[in-house]
Amino acid sequence: MKILDLRSDTVTHPTAAMRTAMAEAIVGDDVYGDDPTVIALETAAAERLGKEAALFVPTGTFGNQLAILSYCQPGDEVIVGDDSHIVWHEVGGAALISGVQLRTIDSDLGTMNAEKIRKKIRHGVDIHEPKTALICVENAHSNGRVIALETMQQIWQVAQAEGVPVHLDGARVFNAASALQVDVKAITQYCDSVMCCLSKGLAAPVGSILAGSHALIAKARKKRKLLGGGMRQVGVLAAPGLLALNEMTARLADDHRHAKLLAAQLAKIDGIVIDLDSVQINMVWFNFSREIDVDKLMQSLANANIKANPPEHGAMRLVTHWQIEEADLARVSQAIEAGIAR
Amino acid sequence: MKILDLRSDTVTHPTAAMRTAMAEAIVGDDVYGDDPTVIALETAAAERLGKEAALFVPTGTFGNQLAILSYCQPGDEVIVGDDSHIVWHEVGGAALISGVQLRTIDSDLGTMNAEKIRKKIRHGVDIHEPKTALICVENAHSNGRVIALETMQQIWQVAQAEGVPVHLDGARVFNAASALQVDVKAITQYCDSVMCCLSKGLAAPVGSILAGSHALIAKARKKRKLLGGGMRQVGVLAAPGLLALNEMTARLADDHRHAKLLAAQLAKIDGIVIDLDSVQINMVWFNFSREIDVDKLMQSLANANIKANPPEHGAMRLVTHWQIEEADLARVSQAIEAGIAR
Amino acid sequence: MKILDLRSDTVTHPTAAMRTAMAEAIVGDDVYGDDPTVIALETAAAERLGKEAALFVPTGTFGNQLAILSYCQPGDEVIVGDDSHIVWHEVGGAALISGVQLRTIDSDLGTMNAEKIRKKIRHGVDIHEPKTALICVENAHSNGRVIALETMQQIWQVAQAEGVPVHLDGARVFNAASALQVDVKAITQYCDSVMCCLSKGLAAPVGSILAGSHALIAKARKKRKLLGGGMRQVGVLAAPGLLALNEMTARLADDHRHAKLLAAQLAKIDGIVIDLDSVQINMVWFNFSREIDVDKLMQSLANANIKANPPEHGAMRLVTHWQIEEADLARVSQAIEAGIAR
Amino acid sequence: MKILDLRSDTVTHPTAAMRTAMAEAIVGDDVYGDDPTVIALETAAAERLGKEAALFVPTGTFGNQLAILSYCQPGDEVIVGDDSHIVWHEVGGAALISGVQLRTIDSDLGTMNAEKIRKKIRHGVDIHEPKTALICVENAHSNGRVIALETMQQIWQVAQAEGVPVHLDGARVFNAASALQVDVKAITQYCDSVMCCLSKGLAAPVGSILAGSHALIAKARKKRKLLGGGMRQVGVLAAPGLLALNEMTARLADDHRHAKLLAAQLAKIDGIVIDLDSVQINMVWFNFSREIDVDKLMQSLANANIKANPPEHGAMRLVTHWQIEEADLARVSQAIEAGIAR
Repeated sequence: MKILDLRSDTVTHPTAAMRTAMAEAIVGDDVYGDDPTVIALETAAAERLGKEAALFVPTGTFGNQLAILSYCQPGDEVIVGDDSHIVWHEVGGAALISGVQLRTIDSDLGTMNAEKIRKKIRHGVDIHEPKTALICVENAHSNGRVIALETMQQIWQVAQAEGVPVHLDGARVFNAASALQVDVKAITQYCDSVMCCLSKGLAAPVGSILAGSHALIAKARKKRKLLGGGMRQVGVLAAPGLLALNEMTARLADDHRHAKLLAAQLAKIDGIVIDLDSVQINMVWFNFSREIDVDKLMQSLANANIKANPPEHGAMRLVTHWQIEEADLARVSQAIEAGIAR
Repeated sequence: MKILDLRSDTVTHPTAAMRTAMAEAIVGDDVYGDDPTVIALETAAAERLGKEAALFVPTGTFGNQLAILSYCQPGDEVIVGDDSHIVWHEVGGAALISGVQLRTIDSDLGTMNAEKIRKKIRHGVDIHEPKTALICVENAHSNGRVIALETMQQIWQVAQAEGVPVHLDGARVFNAASALQVDVKAITQYCDSVMCCLSKGLAAPVGSILAGSHALIAKARKKRKLLGGGMRQVGVLAAPGLLALNEMTARLADDHRHAKLLAAQLAKIDGIVIDLDSVQINMVWFNFSREIDVDKLMQSLANANIKANPPEHGAMRLVTHWQIEEADLARVSQAIEAGIAR
Repeated sequence: MKILDLRSDTVTHPTAAMRTAMAEAIVGDDVYGDDPTVIALETAAAERLGKEAALFVPTGTFGNQLAILSYCQPGDEVIVGDDSHIVWHEVGGAALISGVQLRTIDSDLGTMNAEKIRKKIRHGVDIHEPKTALICVENAHSNGRVIALETMQQIWQVAQAEGVPVHLDGARVFNAASALQVDVKAITQYCDSVMCCLSKGLAAPVGSILAGSHALIAKARKKRKLLGGGMRQVGVLAAPGLLALNEMTARLADDHRHAKLLAAQLAKIDGIVIDLDSVQINMVWFNFSREIDVDKLMQSLANANIKANPPEHGAMRLVTHWQIEEADLARVSQAIEAGIAR
Repeated sequence: MKILDLRSDTVTHPTAAMRTAMAEAIVGDDVYGDDPTVIALETAAAERLGKEAALFVPTGTFGNQLAILSYCQPGDEVIVGDDSHIVWHEVGGAALISGVQLRTIDSDLGTMNAEKIRKKIRHGVDIHEPKTALICVENAHSNGRVIALETMQQIWQVAQAEGVPVHLDGARVFNAASALQVDVKAITQYCDSVMCCLSKGLAAPVGSILAGSHALIAKARKKRKLLGGGMRQVGVLAAPGLLALNEMTARLADDHRHAKLLAAQLAKIDGIVIDLDSVQINMVWFNFSREIDVDKLMQSLANANIKANPPEHGAMRLVTHWQIEEADLARVSQAIEAGIAR
């Protein structure tokens, strides 16, 4: 019985095609600009994301931090949602690496009010004031919600009017595009730069992309070296990255459909409370209507060869990806049902 | 006709006694620990504020930033009210100097919800998480509001329970104590360290105090040197500082009474909207119920030899201090009345 | 005619076995600690380098910077050779990332005087003084010289006596061990931590190792995440890394032998000045005894399908590696001879 | 018997005139730009130092660090003598505050070789390279040596040719000018900015000046606020500062003459070794030709009401200043003679 790992989409293994691509990749020394596969990936990613240029980076966190470092001076201010990945899950890097002052604002799983952002923007004119050097948006939010195009557009318009650049943490921007049923450029038109992960739902083993203007990417390329991200024969990662971009984005719709199916199955179980509208990409969040025995639940899942993170603060998350097929979903919901049965 | 300067209490001139004290100060090289007047001030300030030790610093901003640098490591998180002086008026220093990630939270002119703070505290256990290394509170708030002792206590209890230190930006903590009609230690019992200004309402020309534990102050003393605040015959500033502490705190009640009197006068003027409850220390904020001609208003004040900052976003602030006497208040309200007359 | 690339050993392609290993690697999410191939590599590397623990990092620069960040606080001092890679080729990262003060000292291609180091060490006792938190040594030096064990030992003894840790930039530490004909632990016994590259002469496509105590590596693991180096299915890089460690270190002796052979051939050419004693690992440096036509030289090399960097400040470098065989050397020396012929 | 304090010129007390000036200073809030005495000082200092503009700062360390912060970006490189005050006595501040990489070079008590500096300059063109953003020179050196105008000029010419600014740590630049018998501008013509102390030999209780171009000082003014150096009624310090600048620079020649006299007296004492040529400003350094009893020496000085620092590494320093008169010198040399007598 194959293991089903629903802890996250970060656990995805490379596909067979990706493994072959790694083995056969034409490589060179990318610090010399000699790796044709990296060049091909960066070119394809820039085009796909609607930006002038792109840069391969080892992780999504690296890409976000590199963007902040490339846009900002120490002491500058960055407006960012209080529940964003940059605030929650990047270990305080923005302050350590870039010396920027985070200005965290209310965010409803990624949705921020453009007018509130406008009120926080400062231009550093007064001697007491830092300058707002960047606004960061996250779509899809790492909690699984998709930010509406209208919201993206409103924030973008405020930013444009005030002359402040927008960076999109698009770790799952292709999930967002799929959920919104738009080309990804319909989202990325509302940002100056975007980081997107080739790993996670797209299944590449390692790697993310930072895309933006020629000027930004030239600056970021040198700062990538400073931060220790100037890798050598990195075509071995770019090759599966190209497949992630070209072959895996279309099938994200399946993951989303599977998540909705799983949610529907869970909704029928006594003891589970689930907001079906909250299932927008590949993440299913649910709560329990009565006290449950977490150990028993986790044991039930383990018995069924299912990996999942235990509930945190009462909420449990399951994530679908290419290694979870439609036929697997019943095993998951049944194991949960058994695990919480009185 | 003497000039009345109500722009801020930062404009206060030293008193005649302070000038004499400067001229007669016994001094030494404070980097060698040789300045008896500085030692006397630091000893008196520590005792007055209820802390083990104290350190003279050139400004309030210096004291706040020094506290953050002494408590935190780069990448640590600091919970601080979104409308605090540290966020608004310290030029992004916390990120540049200390590399800390500000976690700004809702604050109603300094009043923060202890439970909201509790939810933001992180202990850095997870590999993705920074550690909350400090909570900053401001009392009185730089906008003129006093934070209730109960609020201070609640935040302190959360902080104690979670093992996170509390720093009090007490630039105007003696104003707060006066307004609350308590000894200042009733406030400072709810913090691990406090910065208080000897300038502002207390009229010393230059200088502030950072007070806290012996360990903190020892650390801060070295970091003060690093930040360029290790001054030499600084007894010339400590001498008026001692007068500020000993002679000037009691009379802050006069400034507060004057502010209330001025507010009452202004409240009677057609065209002025004022919340009398908001006048808690030496600051009077008011708005206008109809459009006014700002140039005319400022000219009217200038004609009466009155300095004031023009309204910002429709709100105007006047600040009382030892150089504004009860008899001066009528001149101010009359000049404003004339300045906004139709 | 196959291309011979002698610009650097950073240009090495992965071997066929490495390509297969990538394709077949058993992987997991390494941020969860789930990647068995990464664990195998880190275990093997720690043992091989004689340290308690090891961590996979994307590049050598990342590993060096991570070590500095893990050992130091901002404002600390790091003693390092003025001609070291950390000073020359890491883009100023130590100051930006870690806020440390480099104390650069005289270094003869990596060889430093232990007594001079001792004199620079400070313990931060005086209020004016930073603390020396780290000494960095580089062996083999990036210019191709091997540091004698005795020198390593002397520096180590000074460091131990003063209580300052030593980090070894061992990007090519296996080259050094091969040249010294010792087990690598004979070198690494004289450091607290070591960074070694699996790329370069060992031919892995991407990746380096930081090895040290359990405590250091635990700290470094979290800071690796902060710096954006927490990759996911990184077993695809660890698999060739294991081959680099297990299969490629023994054959470095061939590269060194080839470098000596090439040097001997070049030494016979009229117009070339070469110090044969300087050829210690896989790098051949030489100068010209008369003015040469650089364009003609580079054209001659290009005609022979040879890639090389042009001379800098009159000195030219050729680097051997697994893709340069003994039989290839004549082609190189002949192309150079032709290229500088009058 | 009055106390003679020869530990340093940092111990100087303000003169009677300075005390009066403090008491009578016309002041204002300097953050508002309202303090006429500060403006007068900054204007006078800029003119005196031959620069467009000047800024009052609390200490010399503050001024040096503010210059570095104003010229540099994090990751930039600063070339500085290995025995400079910035390296030795500023607690590692340049790395912590500005994130710059110090490139320390050989310095013979402040004298550096211009050609060696030229070789270290980098323009950040290569992706591996930081940019040299600043060269720092110190004159007079804090050890008491004066740097020749020719050396200053040579470094300046290299810097100009390479487009790198020069900052002069001129804590004792007026001592240097006096020793060289030139106007101070003959020295400061060879730098873009200069920090000079009003305390030390010039006897102001607190304060230093940073002077440079309008653009630099405008930038520095805002960063001074960030670093916590934006003081309020600082005219009380500017007033004695003006006297330091106007009344005290000419008399430094007396201190230098006294130092030479004291050195000549010491040279005659059995057991003392002194290089009379090394006495260039107000500092007398000497060694002992035989082992001495330090406790006895210090006791002998204490008995004569003389404060001095004990010898360090065998070398002892005495510093003259306005509170040491010619008639006092014999007391000093006699106490030392008695203290080291067999």
